[in-house]
Amino acid sequence: MENQKAQSFGLKSLTALYTLILTIVAFIIEISPTWQSDAMHIEYTIFCVLMYSIAIIYFIYLYTVILYPIVINTILLYLERMHILSVHSIKRWVRPEPVFTGEGAGTLYLRLGTLLFGTLGSVLWGSEIFLCFFTNVRHNIYVVKYILAFVFTYLQMHFLCCNSKIDLPKNSFIASFGMMHCIAVNLWVWFSLCLAKAVYKSDKKTLKLQKNEEKWKKKNMTLTDAVTEAVTTTVAYIASSDGEMVSNFSASEKQLRSLYRLGSAANFLLTTLVEFSLIAAAVYFIIWKHEGEENPQEARKKHVRFDCKSTSVGIFAALVLLVGSFVSISMHYIYNNSDKPRAADEVIGIAETVLFCVTLLAVFAAFSRMRKLQYRLHAHGQVVDEILLIVGLAGEIVYCSTGLDLYLNERLGNVPGTTCLIVVAFVFRIIQVVVQSVFILVSSRLRSLSASNVANQPGKQIITFLVVCNINLFIYHTFETIESNFGFPHKMSSIYSALLNISSPLVVFYRFHSSACLAEIWKHAYSTKHNHSHVHNKPLEDHHIA
Amino acid sequence: MENQKAQSFGLKSLTALYTLILTIVAFIIEISPTWQSDAMHIEYTIFCVLMYSIAIIYFIYLYTVILYPIVINTILLYLERMHILSVHSIKRWVRPEPVFTGEGAGTLYLRLGTLLFGTLGSVLWGSEIFLCFFTNVRHNIYVVKYILAFVFTYLQMHFLCCNSKIDLPKNSFIASFGMMHCIAVNLWVWFSLCLAKAVYKSDKKTLKLQKNEEKWKKKNMTLTDAVTEAVTTTVAYIASSDGEMVSNFSASEKQLRSLYRLGSAANFLLTTLVEFSLIAAAVYFIIWKHEGEENPQEARKKHVRFDCKSTSVGIFAALVLLVGSFVSISMHYIYNNSDKPRAADEVIGIAETVLFCVTLLAVFAAFSRMRKLQYRLHAHGQVVDEILLIVGLAGEIVYCSTGLDLYLNERLGNVPGTTCLIVVAFVFRIIQVVVQSVFILVSSRLRSLSASNVANQPGKQIITFLVVCNINLFIYHTFETIESNFGFPHKMSSIYSALLNISSPLVVFYRFHSSACLAEIWKHAYSTKHNHSHVHNKPLEDHHIA
Repeated sequence: MENQKAQSFGLKSLTALYTLILTIVAFIIEISPTWQSDAMHIEYTIFCVLMYSIAIIYFIYLYTVILYPIVINTILLYLERMHILSVHSIKRWVRPEPVFTGEGAGTLYLRLGTLLFGTLGSVLWGSEIFLCFFTNVRHNIYVVKYILAFVFTYLQMHFLCCNSKIDLPKNSFIASFGMMHCIAVNLWVWFSLCLAKAVYKSDKKTLKLQKNEEKWKKKNMTLTDAVTEAVTTTVAYIASSDGEMVSNFSASEKQLRSLYRLGSAANFLLTTLVEFSLIAAAVYFIIWKHEGEENPQEARKKHVRFDCKSTSVGIFAALVLLVGSFVSISMHYIYNNSDKPRAADEVIGIAETVLFCVTLLAVFAAFSRMRKLQYRLHAHGQVVDEILLIVGLAGEIVYCSTGLDLYLNERLGNVPGTTCLIVVAFVFRIIQVVVQSVFILVSSRLRSLSASNVANQPGKQIITFLVVCNINLFIYHTFETIESNFGFPHKMSSIYSALLNISSPLVVFYRFHSSACLAEIWKHAYSTKHNHSHVHNKPLEDHHIA
Repeated sequence: MENQKAQSFGLKSLTALYTLILTIVAFIIEISPTWQSDAMHIEYTIFCVLMYSIAIIYFIYLYTVILYPIVINTILLYLERMHILSVHSIKRWVRPEPVFTGEGAGTLYLRLGTLLFGTLGSVLWGSEIFLCFFTNVRHNIYVVKYILAFVFTYLQMHFLCCNSKIDLPKNSFIASFGMMHCIAVNLWVWFSLCLAKAVYKSDKKTLKLQKNEEKWKKKNMTLTDAVTEAVTTTVAYIASSDGEMVSNFSASEKQLRSLYRLGSAANFLLTTLVEFSLIAAAVYFIIWKHEGEENPQEARKKHVRFDCKSTSVGIFAALVLLVGSFVSISMHYIYNNSDKPRAADEVIGIAETVLFCVTLLAVFAAFSRMRKLQYRLHAHGQVVDEILLIVGLAGEIVYCSTGLDLYLNERLGNVPGTTCLIVVAFVFRIIQVVVQSVFILVSSRLRSLSASNVANQPGKQIITFLVVCNINLFIYHTFETIESNFGFPHKMSSIYSALLNISSPLVVFYRFHSSACLAEIWKHAYSTKHNHSHVHNKPLEDHHIA
């Protein structure tokens, strides 16, 4: 027994080390100017293909051998009946049925999120495959790379949705190793997408500044200057063969073509892909960590049940805020189109501050209402939720401190047009985020056990309100990542923009995930079933997804 | 008794007549050049304000007197205890508790739809309120009008979601009259929005054609011409005070400002508002029709329960199609930006044809799988679903026949660039729509009563697949209404474009509603509870939404 434990520990350390090395190497390849140079683009793409294909081969192994061994077992039994294999060898090869007792992506909301994010993310890969054949045809290796990326995303989506509760067999080298490889791939995808976005954003900013400068120049020009300018541009326009304005791609470039062709839509798809990788990495980590632990077999739940009592006030109060925030987005858009960028930014700032204040008050109200509920032990399947919540919280803290830092910087530099609103917004935001995280951690352990609580459901309306508000903020922050982040000036040093590019998908993720956690609280805190810990007494059932 | 029946019939005829007259008058006011002229804009807006305010006053009456009489009753009891009112007069004034046994918007999916459409629609009114104060400030009456429109949408949303199963008291003149007034208002909103969209679209088309012409002119100009042209435009640009390109609004114009400021986003919001009005009108009609009918009291269901067994294959197969159709949308966008509108249209056409074929095959497969289920009597709460389905079906038929007609027209005129794809797409579409509607009507009456059906759930995967495919087509058609309708040329006579503008929101609605109906079938056909018709024996319970 001691020996086996040591073996298990050794295996875990080894795979962890592998992931660490692979992740660091991948990160360095992503930022190294040598690997990113045009001369190395084939080698770099081969590296990408290798990363994806190992992960896909692992998934094929996982599905055929561990998750659906029935196919192999049927073949083996057939071979035995045909007297090609002996009974003895069959016994060695027949695989056991899969056991679904792990932690995994347990909550329904998280699984719906992976479906949503994964589907939208796949669209990005799909467009990329199409764009490989557009204007300058790319090297075939690119096609292979993006097809593999698509297949990988799709397989992950299926695994996370349907099979993430799998309990990996103990001391299986391939299972452990593959899981850790997938973590590395997801982290690498996350990092490379953040970098791609940063490059695209700086390109876009340069273009915008150029345009603004031109406009400004035009305004202040004398008539003769303007006429000369106009004549030269027109001549140049006619001289160019067909006046195509869109820059063509070179065959060797490595950046995502869709970012340049689809603009903000691709930016949105990219954000969803980042969220997806993050969730996937966290879930794999949990599966790897709990691998081989023998948990009591629970019946796989197939029925989803919602108790919609006392929710309508919460929903309809939050819908007013939702409409308000959508209107503010449209106001931002209108002001931006009328060349009033300052007013446009202020609208966003005011709307955010209002949202944060209201949500903060709601969290306090929920605290005071939910004191009546009973404290219970840690429930099953919450570890992954808490890890993801903390990751999101870290992102929010980085985001807010960067914002406040930039404000200080502007104040010191006496940049005109710095409003106090930025400080107010960020301070409320950070307070709201911290208080809400504490609230989620505490109240996910609360249950209504007394009869009066079951009847009254204290705080359920406020929880409903908070769920919708967090979804609202999720949409709002998604919009911010696409359009412009409030409180961040258009020109900033590269270190700030790196921090922004890394933290802004996490901010979006924090809102998504806290609405997921609040929905879980909404579902479970008032549930009349409290036998989570007494599940051992239940009859053992095991349904398969057919 | 005879007398009361006559009275009830008289009341119904009277209110129906009122709605008919009001609707026709409102429609005529919308299209009459006199009322739409600039001189009459205050009078026209007063008419709008009247329409909305009567509806809102009715809703206030409905909520305080019929739906939540507890407020009034409490006040009355208080007054009695204070000896201000006698017990006798109290008895006359105390209102009975509301009864929730009507048909109404029974299905969950439909209610979620009203929430979604209503929220997005409110955003349009919100932006419109904001735009009243933008550049040229509008007359105050406009502000009142849009605020009333917002309040009306919000109240309707709450009513449809939470209280649509209300049974109106028998022979109540105000209740009947108000319900019918609301139908007229919704039909009028629907019609006026379709008109606003038509006007906007023709404006946009003229602008686009102008631009294309200019481009074409520029391409074929000699150098000297081009230079002269450039000089004149530049001079004009500098001569204008601040070079603002966006046309300013006049204070008296009546069209929706947000359509011109928000572009395709407002177009999308407008479509949702049209769907919302349609659902609302249908539900009110059902409530009015079943008014005073004494149905057995059913317990108001508060728990929603889903059986997610055997759905994953259906979902994941349909997700591939979903990703594919999103990619085709992005391809359309890219081709359009690269000045290849023909290729862009073809992509849409091919994607649609594939979707229709696959969905058609799936419907046939579902037919053959679901033969095993048992036929049951008409279930409760399906009338409104069937009416809405037929309305949507009518829209689809109008859409397809218009499309085929236009194709014939182009063939006769030998217009270059008419592809056979249009015919194929429309024929498959019309077959798919008709077969699917028949399938929905038949299979909403099927239940799995035998033990083997309960265990196997024949056809559930295919139904899941169909639900996701219809949502997919819903997104696709929504995108089409915003961007460009496949099969319809850019230039067409006004009668065709009127048909298109009326039928295209119905097409979107058909897809939404058939996914709603399929989701209901998914939920109920395999349910193990079959006591819908034996509900009388159940204990009577009546929960209120708190």
